[in-house]
Amino acid sequence: MGKLTGKDLITTIDWEKDDLIKLLELAEDMQKNRYHKKYTEVLKYKTFMMFFYNPSVRTRQSFETAATELGGHAQFLEPKSMRLKTAKTAGETVEDAANVMSRYGAGLGIRILEDQISAYGEGEKLLREYAHYSSIPVMSMAHDKFHPMQGLADIMGLRKHLGKKLEGKTFTLVWGKGALARSWSSIQEALVLYSRFGMNVRIASPEGYDLDPEVIDYTKSQCEKNGKKFLITHDQKEAYEGSNIIYSRNWMTPNAYANGSLDKQGEIEKSLKYNDWICDMEKMKLTDDAVFVHPMPVDRGNEVTDEVASGKRSIIYDIAENRLHVQKAAMMMTMV
Amino acid sequence: MGKLTGKDLITTIDWEKDDLIKLLELAEDMQKNRYHKKYTEVLKYKTFMMFFYNPSVRTRQSFETAATELGGHAQFLEPKSMRLKTAKTAGETVEDAANVMSRYGAGLGIRILEDQISAYGEGEKLLREYAHYSSIPVMSMAHDKFHPMQGLADIMGLRKHLGKKLEGKTFTLVWGKGALARSWSSIQEALVLYSRFGMNVRIASPEGYDLDPEVIDYTKSQCEKNGKKFLITHDQKEAYEGSNIIYSRNWMTPNAYANGSLDKQGEIEKSLKYNDWICDMEKMKLTDDAVFVHPMPVDRGNEVTDEVASGKRSIIYDIAENRLHVQKAAMMMTMV
Amino acid sequence: MGKLTGKDLITTIDWEKDDLIKLLELAEDMQKNRYHKKYTEVLKYKTFMMFFYNPSVRTRQSFETAATELGGHAQFLEPKSMRLKTAKTAGETVEDAANVMSRYGAGLGIRILEDQISAYGEGEKLLREYAHYSSIPVMSMAHDKFHPMQGLADIMGLRKHLGKKLEGKTFTLVWGKGALARSWSSIQEALVLYSRFGMNVRIASPEGYDLDPEVIDYTKSQCEKNGKKFLITHDQKEAYEGSNIIYSRNWMTPNAYANGSLDKQGEIEKSLKYNDWICDMEKMKLTDDAVFVHPMPVDRGNEVTDEVASGKRSIIYDIAENRLHVQKAAMMMTMV
Repeated sequence: MGKLTGKDLITTIDWEKDDLIKLLELAEDMQKNRYHKKYTEVLKYKTFMMFFYNPSVRTRQSFETAATELGGHAQFLEPKSMRLKTAKTAGETVEDAANVMSRYGAGLGIRILEDQISAYGEGEKLLREYAHYSSIPVMSMAHDKFHPMQGLADIMGLRKHLGKKLEGKTFTLVWGKGALARSWSSIQEALVLYSRFGMNVRIASPEGYDLDPEVIDYTKSQCEKNGKKFLITHDQKEAYEGSNIIYSRNWMTPNAYANGSLDKQGEIEKSLKYNDWICDMEKMKLTDDAVFVHPMPVDRGNEVTDEVASGKRSIIYDIAENRLHVQKAAMMMTMV
Repeated sequence: MGKLTGKDLITTIDWEKDDLIKLLELAEDMQKNRYHKKYTEVLKYKTFMMFFYNPSVRTRQSFETAATELGGHAQFLEPKSMRLKTAKTAGETVEDAANVMSRYGAGLGIRILEDQISAYGEGEKLLREYAHYSSIPVMSMAHDKFHPMQGLADIMGLRKHLGKKLEGKTFTLVWGKGALARSWSSIQEALVLYSRFGMNVRIASPEGYDLDPEVIDYTKSQCEKNGKKFLITHDQKEAYEGSNIIYSRNWMTPNAYANGSLDKQGEIEKSLKYNDWICDMEKMKLTDDAVFVHPMPVDRGNEVTDEVASGKRSIIYDIAENRLHVQKAAMMMTMV
Repeated sequence: MGKLTGKDLITTIDWEKDDLIKLLELAEDMQKNRYHKKYTEVLKYKTFMMFFYNPSVRTRQSFETAATELGGHAQFLEPKSMRLKTAKTAGETVEDAANVMSRYGAGLGIRILEDQISAYGEGEKLLREYAHYSSIPVMSMAHDKFHPMQGLADIMGLRKHLGKKLEGKTFTLVWGKGALARSWSSIQEALVLYSRFGMNVRIASPEGYDLDPEVIDYTKSQCEKNGKKFLITHDQKEAYEGSNIIYSRNWMTPNAYANGSLDKQGEIEKSLKYNDWICDMEKMKLTDDAVFVHPMPVDRGNEVTDEVASGKRSIIYDIAENRLHVQKAAMMMTMV
């Protein structure tokens, strides 16, 4: 039983920075000693419940693998077949579902993105409602606002490739055109987490691609607190120049849900007009030999060229692997 | 190898009462010693096949957790994607499916409710057909007539909260309005099992909500054999007064399938007219400090008020937890 | 680490015959010592990724059981919910998916049949593409051209029932009418593998049911190399007479996809006209007391009568069981 036993991990903001660093150090040791007995008995005979309101690739694979490597088992559960109560349908309340799962499981992971909720912010609220009624720790497996495990996996990758002293590094989040109308989840996570780790933050996008103002304010306040620079620009050149980390990713406009449901086609059409908003070798040359970061799946040919995504400075597979390690570490810290 | 090794558990009626008591005692010890080595090696490296003709929450979660805690693994299988032969489609016969699964698995659980069959009773028949061709034990994970594991979980909960001597306690099954048109499975299980354990049985419902006459006859005969009272009434007051156990649950009329397929909307509309058929604090005051029992999911605001369902005398979460323990016990008794 | 560690098993043709024999011998020992410690630790805490482009019964059950019995865990993944890039949709490339899974898993199994691809041969190409980008071994769990695990399970069954010297036995593949429009996968596997093991090969079908000419040529060349007979006929009597192994199975015409997508109804209608193309006791009497072989699911009453399928010389359940053992052997040989 550690001091974090029972603690939820819904956002990284809820955690002390020191505890996040301990989590990263544990994850790094887990990578080195992947099947060591000190880790393979952690969840022995225990169950981790995975609640996928939205499907996923990496999240499913990495959480299920994590439970297996800790000696336990992850159940793949889809609420759509679970007769849960919603605004529209009769069914089981969160109170009841959470109370019962707390009797069976050692932990509960939930993934819920913007298309499963009625308004931005509702996903995180639902996670907090589950956490309120659960006596086991609740973890975000990505929700409408944040994606803590992705952010931690990113930082673990940056620590490996840029060194453990990330303070003062310059991080550029650059919007990319794309055919998939992406959530704000991973990129907002990057903003709040990278800024907390002392990096300079630059955000570049065409006009009209603003993010959650609260997230922007938080990020800015972290940069100020750390004496670091914060920049929002529509000029890609300014954003790439001298940067150490390029994170090129598509995201939706704040109006994507203006008509009540996601206007995916409209978002994609609008997005694909910005022909020049792709991360390519030429732009990467403006940087200070930056690493290329992406939460995957990568929309190659839109967000980034093959040359960059499969290039020497791309650390996307290392980061994807880190999902496994940081999740194992989070499970070990909170569930035993 | 115990004397029940290889035995099916399709209905509790098929089992001697003494063996059911042994199962409950084993389950109670499993709860106390949840991860003790005497239990965690029981299904080591072995597979339990779960056949879900109908989806489920608690049943899936509790059986899969049970297999994990016994050291084994439960496969989540949905016959809809299994090309099985039906009245309408070509495909694999039960003979072939059962014979092959017997080569892979240590046991087979099947869930099949009334909407997956052509007539009431066909679900249990199908389970018995699987059992006929299987060389491994077959378990009901709820079928059209009964839900053995739910009944055993109920009794385990009653033994904890009312004491092991259940003889002479008064059990009231009271119909509740509801928006979910519920199966007879759990409540008929309660009738046959509670009566066998020597309780007085009262059934209260509006007119037109009769249950399977064979089940009623069996229950009545058990009450007579045990010198206990049996009552069917349309008067809620009479049903609640002095009772020790209140089980408020919606169920369908016997005409729900009169037109060949489930008239769910009709059932719900009819049901919701009975405004007064909800278990509330006022009615609970008529009882002898009764415990509130429900197999979940609870249709709060219809079957029962929040005040009762989340109140001090509600034992619904304990019962839900017991699903895990009685299933582990059943698996251990029949599969090794 | 054996000499085959890391080796893919996409087709049996890719493997030396000696290695296939070693695999069969290992599988035979695994059957005898199913839960022996020398096998139950093989994949301890490790993950096998199962990619089902097409659903399946036996393949899912046997691979998942295999991973469990080797101490590991198999993840059941359906690419349809995985946002993979296809000719029609944006999404993740095989390069990215394979690279990431290689970080999580110990091995990757893929099932892809003809209805998920645009042209015959594309399935095997896709498997080879996954193998190219994976650093973990890739296994076919059946694809449009071949089904290696089925073939190996067949041979293991024949070794048990006909003796280990299969050279010189006569194998008859006979088309059966059917209501399921079956893939060429299992039967082409049988042709290439049985011929390599020195059997005489006979193929019997109505006109118009030709198979892949390359597979036929390969089979013929193996028969010639081994000094064995090869026959294609439309005469059932000629095919059954004196045979040691009868494999009666429906398959599609080469024109099934002539209009771009599968004309399943057309295939079934055409097929069901061939009333006499069913394996029955009378025809079995023409053989040299042949065993009856089928990869299942069996379309009883079309491909074969109940009397034969459930008869004394039917070895279909033994073969189905062997799927488990040969897959465990293949996993052990290639993944550790």
